[in-house]
Amino acid sequence: MTNKKPLILITNDDGYQAKGIAELINAMKGLGEIVVFAPDTHRSGMSSAITTTHPLRARIYHKEENLTAYMCNGTPVDCVKLALNEFVERKPDLLVSGINHGSNAGISVLYSGTVAAALEGCVFDVPSIAMSLCDFTPDADFTATAKVARKLAEKVLKDSLPKGICLNVNVPAGEVKGVKMTTQTQGKWVNEYQRSKDGGDREVFWMTGNFENWDANNENNDEWALANGYAAVVPVKIDMTAYDLIPEMKEWEIQC
Amino acid sequence: MTNKKPLILITNDDGYQAKGIAELINAMKGLGEIVVFAPDTHRSGMSSAITTTHPLRARIYHKEENLTAYMCNGTPVDCVKLALNEFVERKPDLLVSGINHGSNAGISVLYSGTVAAALEGCVFDVPSIAMSLCDFTPDADFTATAKVARKLAEKVLKDSLPKGICLNVNVPAGEVKGVKMTTQTQGKWVNEYQRSKDGGDREVFWMTGNFENWDANNENNDEWALANGYAAVVPVKIDMTAYDLIPEMKEWEIQC
Repeated sequence: MTNKKPLILITNDDGYQAKGIAELINAMKGLGEIVVFAPDTHRSGMSSAITTTHPLRARIYHKEENLTAYMCNGTPVDCVKLALNEFVERKPDLLVSGINHGSNAGISVLYSGTVAAALEGCVFDVPSIAMSLCDFTPDADFTATAKVARKLAEKVLKDSLPKGICLNVNVPAGEVKGVKMTTQTQGKWVNEYQRSKDGGDREVFWMTGNFENWDANNENNDEWALANGYAAVVPVKIDMTAYDLIPEMKEWEIQC
Repeated sequence: MTNKKPLILITNDDGYQAKGIAELINAMKGLGEIVVFAPDTHRSGMSSAITTTHPLRARIYHKEENLTAYMCNGTPVDCVKLALNEFVERKPDLLVSGINHGSNAGISVLYSGTVAAALEGCVFDVPSIAMSLCDFTPDADFTATAKVARKLAEKVLKDSLPKGICLNVNVPAGEVKGVKMTTQTQGKWVNEYQRSKDGGDREVFWMTGNFENWDANNENNDEWALANGYAAVVPVKIDMTAYDLIPEMKEWEIQC
């Protein structure tokens, strides 16, 4: 018997208990058969980290018609890899990651586990979308973000995405005026550590920081869209080659 | 007093005790003042993961003229961030990461802590190079790789690199015929898990796998260069935007 329903793989980096993933599952209901494969705990900032030093485990924590949900002790990318290698019986038609509690715009694309999960879907040639809401609070209002996720999922299920490209979607808190197709904002995090002392009076450093926008007046980038009330969609490539530089590099004289 | 010597930051993902980083430090000696800031243990496959759930610590483990070496309990990217935010007094002229024990060619650019450290240097606008030797053995012969690292370091110290681009360099084991400027090979890891049982007879999954090359006949990519005895240099961008797709995406009808 062939199941003709689209297969949708859902994961995140805030863990299976986060409100964001529950909202994403609800947003995807009715679009197909859903498999959730999510970290068993908070795994933010994990980027594309993979687990090699200990084994992975996975178990079902919820099952209903058209929905099977697993939790796994790995990173977001471990979850995608393990699900696609060992747990799903056919290639998904769509992967959606999130909804992340907090922005993954700009340079955060490098550090985000939510985006990394979508990049990993892309490695497997599964059309993939990372969804984030620019609100860190655990009880954030995901209504508008869920609607954007649903619309984009319908679009991607219908027309797919080019090989090697996934979508990094950030949605502002509050009212959403519309959706903008944007570039990754140039900038970086600054003042990244707070010095503190441990119980033995030894110096320790806690990660903190502020995003410094180097391109604040560019109306084509994701930070501009978010600051102006729009959801920002950045197409992200897994091929990181800077092709433009290669001809010049071929002129370098590197003897060895 | 102004120190006119170039400042070189060195890190890796195999940890401060790896042979690869010792060989890299030796290869950089004489080019400037060296600061090593390396993980205190093996941190392979960490990608651009950052540590937010516990604090970082760092301490000096070695000091000699023109060389100060710290170990840190963070990931490779934590090491770069902490060094540049809190430990070095001026912006380095060069960051070199490695020498990794094992290839970081092709899609491994996404998962590699060695490459992530160079990407992070790039975020800080420090000209950055990731060095890997395609030999996983702890006592691998790094002679040729160290020579390539030295030549590239001299080139980059002299002429810098364009903003937002770092170099991912892989060197084959054995004799090296020369250096090729290449693209990231298209392909992915397959058969990524080995099923096993824990002591309680519960199923666990260990990461393993083989690289499947989708572009084996392309003489411009890094896997081709390595298979043919050349060191492969890929220029890697921190801006992952797929610019080409944006005009088409602007035609999408996404109402919300």
